[in-house]
Amino acid sequence: MSKAPAIPFAPVDEQLAVLKRGVVDLIDEAQLRAKLERSRTSGLPLTIKAGFDPSTPDLHLGHTVLLRKMRQFQRLGHRVVFLIGDFTGMIGDPSGKKKTRPQLTEEEVQVNARTYQEQAFKVLDRDSTVIDFNNRWFGEMGAQGIIRLAGSYTLARMMERDDFRKRFRDNEPIAMHELLYPLVQGYDSVALEADVELGGHDQIFNLLVGRDLMRERGMEPQVVLTVPLLVGTDGSEKMSKSLGNAIALDDEPRDAYGKVMSVPDELMWDWYLLLTDLPQEELAERKRLCESGAMHPKQAKQELARRIVADFHGEQAALDAEREFETVFAHGGVPDDVEELALHPLPLAKLLAEAQLAASNSEARRLIQQGAVSIDGDKASDPYAELAPRDEPYLLKVGKRRFARIRIRT
Amino acid sequence: MSKAPAIPFAPVDEQLAVLKRGVVDLIDEAQLRAKLERSRTSGLPLTIKAGFDPSTPDLHLGHTVLLRKMRQFQRLGHRVVFLIGDFTGMIGDPSGKKKTRPQLTEEEVQVNARTYQEQAFKVLDRDSTVIDFNNRWFGEMGAQGIIRLAGSYTLARMMERDDFRKRFRDNEPIAMHELLYPLVQGYDSVALEADVELGGHDQIFNLLVGRDLMRERGMEPQVVLTVPLLVGTDGSEKMSKSLGNAIALDDEPRDAYGKVMSVPDELMWDWYLLLTDLPQEELAERKRLCESGAMHPKQAKQELARRIVADFHGEQAALDAEREFETVFAHGGVPDDVEELALHPLPLAKLLAEAQLAASNSEARRLIQQGAVSIDGDKASDPYAELAPRDEPYLLKVGKRRFARIRIRT
Repeated sequence: MSKAPAIPFAPVDEQLAVLKRGVVDLIDEAQLRAKLERSRTSGLPLTIKAGFDPSTPDLHLGHTVLLRKMRQFQRLGHRVVFLIGDFTGMIGDPSGKKKTRPQLTEEEVQVNARTYQEQAFKVLDRDSTVIDFNNRWFGEMGAQGIIRLAGSYTLARMMERDDFRKRFRDNEPIAMHELLYPLVQGYDSVALEADVELGGHDQIFNLLVGRDLMRERGMEPQVVLTVPLLVGTDGSEKMSKSLGNAIALDDEPRDAYGKVMSVPDELMWDWYLLLTDLPQEELAERKRLCESGAMHPKQAKQELARRIVADFHGEQAALDAEREFETVFAHGGVPDDVEELALHPLPLAKLLAEAQLAASNSEARRLIQQGAVSIDGDKASDPYAELAPRDEPYLLKVGKRRFARIRIRT
Repeated sequence: MSKAPAIPFAPVDEQLAVLKRGVVDLIDEAQLRAKLERSRTSGLPLTIKAGFDPSTPDLHLGHTVLLRKMRQFQRLGHRVVFLIGDFTGMIGDPSGKKKTRPQLTEEEVQVNARTYQEQAFKVLDRDSTVIDFNNRWFGEMGAQGIIRLAGSYTLARMMERDDFRKRFRDNEPIAMHELLYPLVQGYDSVALEADVELGGHDQIFNLLVGRDLMRERGMEPQVVLTVPLLVGTDGSEKMSKSLGNAIALDDEPRDAYGKVMSVPDELMWDWYLLLTDLPQEELAERKRLCESGAMHPKQAKQELARRIVADFHGEQAALDAEREFETVFAHGGVPDDVEELALHPLPLAKLLAEAQLAASNSEARRLIQQGAVSIDGDKASDPYAELAPRDEPYLLKVGKRRFARIRIRT
């Protein structure tokens, strides 16, 4: 009989079934199977790597798709490395072209990394997550090491990356350091001796570079596994804070719940797949019920919203958020606890900004022009209109979920 | 009255006349003039940079074109930096594609650099030459510094270099580190705060990168000045040891003299321009005399040979070499001191190799097939022929200048 494994890993087919859920690329399955089998025999966990850029510490649901995949590996007993790209974060974008990649000090990187971790641990298992920083190896590598690394790849292979090829063809500038970042990310896999690298589907090229670099060094290449980019609440664009279609992990439970409820019905099933653990058979069954009319889509979506809110804020908060949501519906869409303010007469746009229903005068004007503002249920159209003083407060509504009762002082 | 300069620099026009001799690119003359004027006013010399790759320590006449230009700056009182690229030398060619750029240890680089300097000082003024090594700044720069440096240039600008563009178009591989080397060379100019960078005409792109990097950092850009690539003794290809058309600085005086005499007449004037200080008016006059038939080209070429040999071996050696050359001509082309050997009968090719008239059997066979071998004045054609034993030695001649008398033993 073979030696009993130190840790009882689940059978390989069971593991594969979990790990393949919602995946876009898996390169390749046979290699992942072989690694899982070897791990099961030896009792040694696989090393799973996922890299994070410390310049954007605010996580939203889109990030959790990857974090959930990491958690699946953790729950199966594997060693998950949460790799923080402090080396590249401290470089920033020397060409000065990208606002999203400012040059960070070591301290800023550390602060961002901590914020990032705190949020990530809402999904990941804190105790079994290995945190690492790639400046650990790049800090020692020196200028020569980077040039040697560059020498292990040709320009032609680098230009196989879609966006590089397209930008070069269209005469859009590509700063030379951008061509080095895939090698930096790839070398991280060499340094960590990763068995599997996880990433968003848009990262596939960089993940494959890691495979190449490992192979060239005589190492067993990592398996590459990507998850899809989550579509945002608008049902069309990739979820992104700047597009306003995101649900942040630190959104209030009632906001998060309401935003999930605003998602188009068609998108709901993707979110179920990528943001919950509902078994795929149950998911298929539920979808069938909705399509046949036996279940109202609102009911399915409420469960989705409850599950998502419960994940980040707990069961009770999810139930409270649901009750609140129902009440709003029951009261013609106005929540119970709308804030009441007293203000002096002001042009409408300015009034909205003062009441913090809009971030600024100009945003308020834009919202009014888009028809997103109503007063006592009537759509407002003139940003310069002034509300007349009266005893009753006005009910102002902005978008679907922002409310205030405003009493105009004489 | 303005302050008297600390060092009496020559008038700017005089300096420019010397410096422009034999130059291909000068970018640009107005800037060089301004720098020379400022230097003359302040009494401070300009910093002149020329970079050398320590992987090929054997210098030939081709290298001296640049060294002579450096010496011209020295003689005008400027500060010439002989920059040894030890940083890049220690990287080598990580893609493993080029045999000419092996990865060198620090010790090997130091040894090569010393050999290089010893030879270069046959041209340069040893006392006023500043020797520097670019690992002085790159050794401290770190991986981040190189990536930042890369970020200051775009791929499109780098691909303006002819050979990069051509190779990319023709699907010939370009290793990524090759794209970084122009930036490394350019950064050397930043570190040295160079006023002028000298190089061969084939280096023009890299020299201009230095200008760009300096300008981007708010520095006054260096002036770029290139010299032509010297055509070798064959009159067609760039001088290169591997093409067999080179005259090495440590060639024996008689060999050097004979090789200069073998240069085609048309090439002689370029060599005069690039390898001697003969004033350009005298040079033009001499050329006119030869063309009109008033002077025999051989006479002009002998003076060229004498000047070149004297430069590296002294006047006496040059006169001896000339006398030897004349004697060879007077005796039907056979020198006085041909070595005499006694050998057993052997196939001709093997005999030539034994007598060290050819580097190997196969080279000997090739030389025979090319008709470059004669025996007692008759061209030999059969590499396997054996010479019959006789009392008199055979006179063997290979090419124009290799001789031996061989006595065949019975």
